[in-house]
Amino acid sequence: MYKVNSNYLKLQGNYLFSTIGKKVANFKENNPDKKVILLGIGDVTQPLAPAIIDTLHNAVDEMGHIDTFKGYAPDLGYEFLRNAIAIGDYRSRGVDISIDEVFVSDGINCDVGNIQEIFSVDNKIAICDPVYPVYIDTNVMAGRTGTYDKTMQRWNGVVYMPCTPDNNFVPELPKETPDIIYLCFPNNPTGTTITKDQLQVWVDYANKIKAVIIYDAAYEAYISEDNVPHTIYECEGAKSCAIELKSFSKSAGFTGLRLGYMVVPKDLKCFNVSLNALWARRHGTKYNGAPYIVQRAGETIYSKVGRDQIKKQIDYYKNNAKIILKGLREAGYSVYGGVNAPYIWLKTPNNMNSWEFFYYLLEKANVVGTPGSGFGPMGEGYFRLTAFGTYENTVDAIERIKKL
Amino acid sequence: MYKVNSNYLKLQGNYLFSTIGKKVANFKENNPDKKVILLGIGDVTQPLAPAIIDTLHNAVDEMGHIDTFKGYAPDLGYEFLRNAIAIGDYRSRGVDISIDEVFVSDGINCDVGNIQEIFSVDNKIAICDPVYPVYIDTNVMAGRTGTYDKTMQRWNGVVYMPCTPDNNFVPELPKETPDIIYLCFPNNPTGTTITKDQLQVWVDYANKIKAVIIYDAAYEAYISEDNVPHTIYECEGAKSCAIELKSFSKSAGFTGLRLGYMVVPKDLKCFNVSLNALWARRHGTKYNGAPYIVQRAGETIYSKVGRDQIKKQIDYYKNNAKIILKGLREAGYSVYGGVNAPYIWLKTPNNMNSWEFFYYLLEKANVVGTPGSGFGPMGEGYFRLTAFGTYENTVDAIERIKKL
Repeated sequence: MYKVNSNYLKLQGNYLFSTIGKKVANFKENNPDKKVILLGIGDVTQPLAPAIIDTLHNAVDEMGHIDTFKGYAPDLGYEFLRNAIAIGDYRSRGVDISIDEVFVSDGINCDVGNIQEIFSVDNKIAICDPVYPVYIDTNVMAGRTGTYDKTMQRWNGVVYMPCTPDNNFVPELPKETPDIIYLCFPNNPTGTTITKDQLQVWVDYANKIKAVIIYDAAYEAYISEDNVPHTIYECEGAKSCAIELKSFSKSAGFTGLRLGYMVVPKDLKCFNVSLNALWARRHGTKYNGAPYIVQRAGETIYSKVGRDQIKKQIDYYKNNAKIILKGLREAGYSVYGGVNAPYIWLKTPNNMNSWEFFYYLLEKANVVGTPGSGFGPMGEGYFRLTAFGTYENTVDAIERIKKL
Repeated sequence: MYKVNSNYLKLQGNYLFSTIGKKVANFKENNPDKKVILLGIGDVTQPLAPAIIDTLHNAVDEMGHIDTFKGYAPDLGYEFLRNAIAIGDYRSRGVDISIDEVFVSDGINCDVGNIQEIFSVDNKIAICDPVYPVYIDTNVMAGRTGTYDKTMQRWNGVVYMPCTPDNNFVPELPKETPDIIYLCFPNNPTGTTITKDQLQVWVDYANKIKAVIIYDAAYEAYISEDNVPHTIYECEGAKSCAIELKSFSKSAGFTGLRLGYMVVPKDLKCFNVSLNALWARRHGTKYNGAPYIVQRAGETIYSKVGRDQIKKQIDYYKNNAKIILKGLREAGYSVYGGVNAPYIWLKTPNNMNSWEFFYYLLEKANVVGTPGSGFGPMGEGYFRLTAFGTYENTVDAIERIKKL
């Protein structure tokens, strides 16, 4: 008789954003007259930039003619895109990444969920607390954690690294030695970030203890300040200890188009085993590539006109972040992030817990945010708002919150 | 210090089609004057149908306007597509599948690679021999097999079910009891298929021994004969033992567009654990959906005009299959398949082994096929050709083979 993967049965409730989605749908059904503003899930609202739309139309036309039709994509992704990435995101910053270190995918969510597969089940993972839930959930599914401790609200066998106002949301090196370290800067959910010097400490540490860093740089496009690294490979020695994940979802509004990439440097080796080769094997076996038309759209982001247009879009969301920060400060909230990231992390008022504040905001202001406790126990008493709404809705939401 | 997943180190060589791709690229480089015809990898050559192109353009335009822009897709896929699938592929055949049993994905390759994750590592799998390599490779990666026996060319701990001319390429019920049974009909690589009565025997067997069948129906659109089931759910009791995987790659030329789906019935339970719920958790956590524009393209396949246009495309490839079958028979080959599937399986001549015949065909006729031994030891001495070339190339390739 077949048996299921019992690790799945350890998972706590549903995936955070599925849960929120259901609660909001339920509220809307019971309150059809209320205009609910979504500043919860980090989904963009601005349409794709005109240059991307043009590219998509052209690529669709190519798919309609026998001479230009494209079937299966190359294993690692089309060279035109990997080349644009290697130049646009790396060589332009003085970092040498070759195109066979770049793996095109359908987004960071899949990549971050799948990358752990190439590691042994008995590696010990370290995650920030609060943290993007996919890092931990996918490791639970794989059996890389113990059981869930309901009192501590933590998984046994996992190294947690608290990120709080006390440490400026930059984790300290853990006391217990981990094997795989998940870092995300600019950070989801706190919207805070790390300086290059601070990140160098982590790179040196990883090289010293022979850990691998999984570096989620999904929000890199939102960096405004000079001393914040745009890629972990700006740090010396990162190529021998770090995998970097990037997404086009938040930089170019691709949440519904699906495109991302992962960099696995050839210098990254466990004894004589190349992680690049392992990931290439996984990628070539279990994945069939992002659609051609979407890869062409990705290439456009690196053109002059594409870059200009998506910069305007990012500036639009950054302006929303400013509005949220300013409004919440005026309303007396303690707020963090929002400068180098599209997320604002706020302390809930009156000792409300995160879910109490979620319902309070939903019911009193009809504004949806994300309970901080959904990202881990250190997120309890905090709340995440995103800058991805429209300008009008963002202004409206902040006005409503100020009136509470 | 981190450790890699040592199961990956057990894998033999590269993924079959990556290996062939490299060999062909190498041959082309050394023989730039030769016109190589690819009848190896099962990739389509006809452009997307006009109705699909129209839909894609419309959906791209939607992505360019704020009122119609789409971000993250719903977890299971857009309802419009799941509805079209439930009606078009199931209800129309008298099979009741509800839309929350349908999970939209970016293709069968990912699905077949990922579905094994929801099962325990200590399940015993049964696969046909020859077989599509992803079934076995992904189970090796997960640690669900023993070591590779180079003499037997088989993985220890796996139940192999030989498919040969002696059993008409329909496997017999295995002597050793498996937990997970992979079946693919119409079959890749042999191009042969199964009758409804024969499949019912497998469904009854799976229910009796409490095994789950992973049923790959990627080539269903090529079924020509009346007694061949279009879905495993035509068999009584299949909902309590079978997961079905479908793809738009071969039915509508989506190899470069990426779309498929999986059906996980709610009746499918391991004690009280619903596989539908487990897969929903996996899908919602590790995957972010197929692009909106691609899901719209998928919907079009179920429209009157879409259906008519893709039928013409399938008929085009079926005609190629006929040409290959007829030509090879005239040339004295023993051939199988090609009637309900786009694959033709041939016995290599003069006791050549599969790779010898691969090089022979590549060098003498400049035609690329797939060595049968790449699909398992019982494929040794066989060779696969696909009907997915253009008509002109197919005719040309067969003429060249006939002249050898």
